[in-house]
Amino acid sequence: MDDRIAEHAAVLVDWSARIEEGDNVVVSVAEGAHDLAVAVARALGERGANPVMTYGSSEIDRAYLRAHDGDFDDDPAHELALYENADVILSLGGGRNTSALADVPGETRRAAAKASEEVRDARRSTDRISTVHPTRSLAQQAGTSYEAYQDFVYDAVLRDWESLAEEMARMKDLLNDGTEVRIVTRDTDITMSIEDRTAVNSTASVADDSHNLPSGEVFTAPHATDGEIRVDIPMTLRGKRVRDVSLKFEGGEVVDYDAAQNPEVIAEILDTDDGARRLGELGIGMNRGIDRPTDSILFDEKMAGTVHLALGRAYDACLPEGKDGNDSAVHVDLITDMSEDSRLEIDGDVVQRNGVFRWEDEL
Amino acid sequence: MDDRIAEHAAVLVDWSARIEEGDNVVVSVAEGAHDLAVAVARALGERGANPVMTYGSSEIDRAYLRAHDGDFDDDPAHELALYENADVILSLGGGRNTSALADVPGETRRAAAKASEEVRDARRSTDRISTVHPTRSLAQQAGTSYEAYQDFVYDAVLRDWESLAEEMARMKDLLNDGTEVRIVTRDTDITMSIEDRTAVNSTASVADDSHNLPSGEVFTAPHATDGEIRVDIPMTLRGKRVRDVSLKFEGGEVVDYDAAQNPEVIAEILDTDDGARRLGELGIGMNRGIDRPTDSILFDEKMAGTVHLALGRAYDACLPEGKDGNDSAVHVDLITDMSEDSRLEIDGDVVQRNGVFRWEDEL
Repeated sequence: MDDRIAEHAAVLVDWSARIEEGDNVVVSVAEGAHDLAVAVARALGERGANPVMTYGSSEIDRAYLRAHDGDFDDDPAHELALYENADVILSLGGGRNTSALADVPGETRRAAAKASEEVRDARRSTDRISTVHPTRSLAQQAGTSYEAYQDFVYDAVLRDWESLAEEMARMKDLLNDGTEVRIVTRDTDITMSIEDRTAVNSTASVADDSHNLPSGEVFTAPHATDGEIRVDIPMTLRGKRVRDVSLKFEGGEVVDYDAAQNPEVIAEILDTDDGARRLGELGIGMNRGIDRPTDSILFDEKMAGTVHLALGRAYDACLPEGKDGNDSAVHVDLITDMSEDSRLEIDGDVVQRNGVFRWEDEL
Repeated sequence: MDDRIAEHAAVLVDWSARIEEGDNVVVSVAEGAHDLAVAVARALGERGANPVMTYGSSEIDRAYLRAHDGDFDDDPAHELALYENADVILSLGGGRNTSALADVPGETRRAAAKASEEVRDARRSTDRISTVHPTRSLAQQAGTSYEAYQDFVYDAVLRDWESLAEEMARMKDLLNDGTEVRIVTRDTDITMSIEDRTAVNSTASVADDSHNLPSGEVFTAPHATDGEIRVDIPMTLRGKRVRDVSLKFEGGEVVDYDAAQNPEVIAEILDTDDGARRLGELGIGMNRGIDRPTDSILFDEKMAGTVHLALGRAYDACLPEGKDGNDSAVHVDLITDMSEDSRLEIDGDVVQRNGVFRWEDEL
């Protein structure tokens, strides 16, 4: 077995999930994630944790959902009890076809999601981490070879996380001390307020309330956005390729939009509800192991030299105690390259220029 | 997808597990059983049942067990809660290597088994059914090609179960009305008492307390065994091929034994405990879809024209209410071919001769 699989498992179990002896762990194994699951099982055995392995298959979900009449039972007792009694959930992604759920009606998905709210809450109350094992399907989605994709994934995952967490803490402090962010590129000039907001250092560890491996971003919940932004990292949204989205904000709301490919997807997202027209997140990618977009939000939004803005729901962690942020049924991240002719300002100070942070040599 | 996979799923869900709308089902999916799991998911969706898919991988079990220090936590709460809240467990076997657990120390397995007694009890209190999806590994174990093995499995599983259940009920009645069974072949002449015992009609349905698909046997719990038997269906026991076992009984206990290959495996089994030297089961195979041994007990013991005797533990279902049968940590089935020069007698009446039952034409 590739040594990197065992290293991935060790980072997941120790750095990310902080698993200890006696922890009750649910490991969700995707169709193509068997080898990572073997390595994780070994790591859990060494640490004396107690795994239950579940099988996460989009093909199985599709078969079940399409066959069902849509009147789903709420929160089945066995499923709820499993997660209510779990300390940790490790989701090992890595399927065999990223389009496997393409022909499940949206209505069915929404009905199933609505019937499992308590299960979702129980899952959210665990120390949960999502990661992916490299598969040929994900390599295809990224438009690259399997071997190159494996290298890509391990470069992103096998970081010196402690050192990256320290660097990200600087960015977090700058955001927490500031009141206004301005982003400028060739096609972008946008400002947003971050007053009264708390930035989150997403270190790929439950110790920092971070639930993705890899991670490597600092994010907050902006408001009162004004100006225009060009989203130049392409991505697949709702099964369709979307390129070069532009958004115009006035008083915190999107007042105009366009896209070079499939603009109707953006229209559909904006029309979800009132909150979908406002921002829920400003994120700053800081993972230098991620050097190119791969059409996977798990990786793309953490790419060093990018920022992302999410339309929709804000995370509570960024809001003052007891205060609600932007609410919406959606949270759609849109990513902009900052590596050329770009700058990120906080209260008029340039914090990053052409993808390089103030504390790095070149600035 | 092969139509027979969907038929297999339908037999499993409807005839075997009697699944109804709202049932909470755990589906355990072996490494090679994905396609059957897709078909089962579709069937469960159609019937409005609620599945949780678990992943049953010997490679994962091996990695976990070998890495663990052996001091296992008793009955982890999340695992116990899952099964305590399940109505049905469908175990879809079909791995990729029948020897995957060969290098897990016996001591570790026993410690793990001992730490999960409540989990096992919770599983036993569900309507549980075990079946297998044909895999190349199982074809190899059977010494045949993949395609031939697929035909074999579906011949065994896709029976007219109602009609077979009726035929088996005849055999059950004969055993319940009788007091002594005698089995005679070229190398066998053995008698055992079945007085005060209840025969079980193993119809592959939880409705008859039968938990294997395929099934197709009638069994009881004999005692006071005397005589000699030659076990001529070869099988792999504890990872070793065992051929032509002979056992000599006096007063219900094995007093002598031999085997043409690996007799030490039989010695080891007999030395487990006192109960391992006595019989726990007499079973009569009646599934005519199973026409050859495949070195898999799930199929072999149900083969029409065979009987099997199990050393060790008896099933409570065969005993009078409140009375205990033979107790042992083991239950090892040993199968004898009855298709030639053989007869099965109950109280002196020939019930089966050369593999053909009294109610069939040829007798």
